This record gives sequence, C-alpha cells and structure tokens, in this order.
Amino acid sequence: MTSVADTKTKAQASRPLLVVGSLALDTIETQTSRREDVLGGAACYASYAASFFAPVRLVGVVGEDFPRKHEDLLRARQIDLAGLERVHGRTFRWAGRYAADFNQRTTLDTQLNVFETFRPKIPPSYVDSEMVFLANIDPVLQLEVLNQVRQPRFVACDTMNFWIGGKREDLLRVLRRVNMVLLNDEEARQLSGRDNLPAAARIIQGMGPTAVVIKRGDAGALLFAQGEVFAAPAFPLEKVEDPTGAGDSFAGGCMGWLARTGDFSDNGIRNAMVFGTVLASFAVEDFSLDRFRSLDAAAIRDRCAAFARLVRYTPASF
Amino acid sequence: MTSVADTKTKAQASRPLLVVGSLALDTIETQTSRREDVLGGAACYASYAASFFAPVRLVGVVGEDFPRKHEDLLRARQIDLAGLERVHGRTFRWAGRYAADFNQRTTLDTQLNVFETFRPKIPPSYVDSEMVFLANIDPVLQLEVLNQVRQPRFVACDTMNFWIGGKREDLLRVLRRVNMVLLNDEEARQLSGRDNLPAAARIIQGMGPTAVVIKRGDAGALLFAQGEVFAAPAFPLEKVEDPTGAGDSFAGGCMGWLARTGDFSDNGIRNAMVFGTVLASFAVEDFSLDRFRSLDAAAIRDRCAAFARLVRYTPASF
Repeated sequence: MTSVADTKTKAQASRPLLVVGSLALDTIETQTSRREDVLGGAACYASYAASFFAPVRLVGVVGEDFPRKHEDLLRARQIDLAGLERVHGRTFRWAGRYAADFNQRTTLDTQLNVFETFRPKIPPSYVDSEMVFLANIDPVLQLEVLNQVRQPRFVACDTMNFWIGGKREDLLRVLRRVNMVLLNDEEARQLSGRDNLPAAARIIQGMGPTAVVIKRGDAGALLFAQGEVFAAPAFPLEKVEDPTGAGDSFAGGCMGWLARTGDFSDNGIRNAMVFGTVLASFAVEDFSLDRFRSLDAAAIRDRCAAFARLVRYTPASF
Repeated sequence: MTSVADTKTKAQASRPLLVVGSLALDTIETQTSRREDVLGGAACYASYAASFFAPVRLVGVVGEDFPRKHEDLLRARQIDLAGLERVHGRTFRWAGRYAADFNQRTTLDTQLNVFETFRPKIPPSYVDSEMVFLANIDPVLQLEVLNQVRQPRFVACDTMNFWIGGKREDLLRVLRRVNMVLLNDEEARQLSGRDNLPAAARIIQGMGPTAVVIKRGDAGALLFAQGEVFAAPAFPLEKVEDPTGAGDSFAGGCMGWLARTGDFSDNGIRNAMVFGTVLASFAVEDFSLDRFRSLDAAAIRDRCAAFARLVRYTPASF
C-alpha cells in the first residue's frame, strides 16, 4: 500500500494517456430524478476515471455554451486540455431515460451540434503519446487520430452499433491497429455475427485486437486475451443513481491503470479490469461525474479491497 | 487433490442430501435442434448434480409412462429412489423454446399430469436427513416436507413467480424455516418488491434465510450472506446446447458440496457456489442430463481449476 502522496508521484511518472472522444451535455431521466444539461460524454468519463492513475491528454470539441466550470473540473484533475477545441455553436447533447432496473435505456434526443463536424487534431505536445484510448466516435476519426500519433505502444478503442452497421470497413481498419477493443455484448454480437460471447470474442480477436473486453453492464465484464478468459463481476451496489458513463469510466480506469503500470501481462490486464470495474462502480453512484469529484485514492483502494473480497475464495480440494 | 476413488469414499461418508421436486419429460426447442420427451425436472437435475458429491435421497412422482431407463440412470448414480412414487397417469411434461442467445425462453406447454395431485411422502429411511433441498414446488408441499423431516440441519429452497404471486403467505412460512434460498433475479425482485438486487437480497434475508443466492443465468450468481457478497460468474462456454436445468444443477452442485463437507462457513458456501457454477456449466453443454452421464470427478476437478483461473488475479498495490 502506498500513500496518497506516493500515488500522485507515481501517476506523474507514468505514461500519459491520450483520450479522444465526446464531451457532452446530458439530460438524464431515471425513475426518481431528472438532471438537465449535466457534464457527460465518453471522453469526459474516461479521462476523469483515468486521471486517478496517470496523466491524461484530452482531445475533443465543445461549443460556446460549454460551461467554464466543467473545463475547470477537468483541469483540477491535471487533465491536459491542449487538445480541447472550443468552436462556434452548441455542445453535443444527449438525452436518455432509464428503466427501473437500469438495464434498459431509451435515447430521447441526440443533437450532434459541434460534434457533427469534429475532426480530431492532435496537438504537437501529444504526438509522442504511447497510450491511446479511442472512445466511441466515427471510426474514420479514430483512424485520423492514429495517423497523427507518432508511435503508439498500446491502443484501445470502443465503438457502437451505428458504426458497426454503417462504417464496418473503416471500423475493421481501426481494429487492425488496436491492441484492445472494449465493447458491450450486443455490439460484440453484431460485429462478430455470433450470439455466443466466447465465439464472438474469438472472431473479433481475429480482426486484430489481442485483447477483447466485453462489457455487460451489471453482469460485469469479460476479458478474452492470450487464450485465457477473465471475468470481472460488476460491483453489486445498493445505491445506483445513474449508469450513464459506466462503460466509459470502466475503459478510463482500465486504460489509466495500464498507462500507470505499463504492465500488459495477463495479470496486469486483469488488474486493469478490476480498476475499470471499481471506477465504473463509483460513476453510477451519482449523476454525471458528481461521484468522481469527491473521490480519492483511499476510496478507490477501499473498493479494490472490497472487489477482492467479492470474488475471493480458497478452493477446497475435491 | 484426491483421486476418483477417494472421492467416492468421501461422498459415501458425507451427509445424505434429501431432494424434493419435479421429475419431468421435457420437449426442448433451440434455434438448431429439438428434443422430445427427454428426462428433465428440477429434482432430476439437482439430484444428479449433487450425486457427484454426496449420497442423494430423491422424493418425487412419475407416471406409468416414465421410462425405466431414466430410473436406472438415477440409480446408477446411487441416488436413493425409495421416495420416488410411480402412480397411475402421465408424467409431468414441459415444453419450451429458447431464443438465439439462450437468455430468453418461451414456455410452449405445461402439463402437470401426476404432479397435480403430488403430496410428498418422506420414507422412514429419509426422516433423519440433515440436508434438504426443496426444489421449486408449491410452498404448501415444501412445508409438508419440512414437517416430515426430523431435525434438518441445513435447508435450502427454490421457488418461482407463480408461488411468489399466488401463495405468498405459504412461501413466507417456508422462508422462515430455510437457511438458504436460491432464486433468479426476477423472482428476487418480485419477492422483495425491490429492483436493486443487493436491496432485494437484504429484504429476503429479513424473511428468514441467512444466505440468499440470486441466480442470473449467464451473468452468474450472487451470494449474500453474513454481511458479505460473493459473485460467481457463469463459466463462459462456446458450446451451449440447452440451458434447461442449469439453475437446478447449480442448486444441486451447491447443496451436494455442502452435504459433502458440512462446511457452512463463508468460504465453505463460496466453494459450494463454485461447484454449483461448475455443474451448471456442464448441464448446458447438452440436452437433458446427457452431459452429466459422461461426467466424472476428473472433469469436475478440471473445470473447478478453470473457474479459479477465470476469476483469479494478484491484486496490484495502489
């Protein structure tokens, strides 16, 4: 165990993680609450989650209406905003409603706004990034990012049904260049054409990534890599306020940990999955990034210990 | 590690497990196959799964049409059939169809037949049973069983939506007398009135059982007991033929292990969950109890080792 101060020093010594994706203003309805125009977007959640483990470099776009306080929040976590463009127009907006058990959500509204014409520009200070997370954006843009980074060492990407269906060839081009893909079970099925998840993962591995992470919401996540499978159950929480960004926080925690350690061994990636699970478990405890604001290394450490207790058993002999 | 021979000796030395529930002839449709009138029923799956770990005493009813070869199959596993009634009429029949991903099934037909008037009679040779598994039957019958057993030490029960809705008071009477309840997530929600599973488990614990096991199909199972939670992911399988009986095989493996060891400690029950998971993983690999027929201790041991690899990681310090 290291102290919070040690943690900070170590994080500053580790490889920076480049995160590219959306920043959004979300309107969220649950069975009991509603929040309007709160900070969201895959790149926000992923960056903030990763920032507990490694320096983060963000690339994204916001409109004139994006509140300064949101930028300040990211900057307070030492997230590098050299790659954050502020352009004429309104920020990307998403609105959704969750069912009672949070496993189903309905998109009520999507306004791409400034995100529609977004072309990621990697600042000169970012081109040496060794660790890259391509959050869910058009695979054509994901490729443009990879073409601007000098010599990435470990690249992960996310995607969604829209691109799997509509830009399959571009997505396959991305997949050939990534080490790890994180996607949910339905996306894995759609991409592979197989219903069975281990079969789907095997087919997706054949498309390029050596590690395939299938995110299953409150059923946890599965890692397929190096002929092994690792199952990380979701942390069972009695308080769930808003699952928005859970998958992105998972990815951010996972990639942040890998950036911190540079340990891409089986056990290294398993640990990254655990940190991803832990960060996702915090993300859902409040709306937007609100739970993250009060999060510190001690709380992360406590939940890592609780996760270990959640899965630990001493095998009996038979 | 003990040899297969040791295993057998140990199993014979452990407490017998009394299993009460249905024996059925199932007709199963999947996307690729169809099987008619194959051996099924909760008590069959549970008994057979448990028989790898402890002596089993079965109580149930079949009609004149129940093939002798099915009885022989159970007897070959040393399952005590003194409590199996064969009565005038047809055996309980169930027919169902599975969707492509096996997570949804449609009941096509249910014919209770001889099961409709079933009243479990515990033979004198069973009344000293210390370990009892009450599979999913009318809670009034579950109570009748408990009233006939002299001094049960550890009782577990399953149930279903039909009884939770229609015989709630009787079910609550059962729950006050059981140590462990195993039910699926929808049943846990219905019984507790809460969507959140940890909250549901807490409420169900308040109804009597100190251990609540929530079965979630291919999302695995959660154990809530002694203020702790244990998550056992389902074993990711590329070959799934028929998920019928997976939950009952889980319960049988779990209770069989507890009967074998008498270890009701936190780690003892966690191990029971693992054996339940392992037996369930075999059950789904073929129709009916077909995969069980060729199963031996060595295969169970191998899959236990594979399960340990599925969840094992060496926590990194942070």
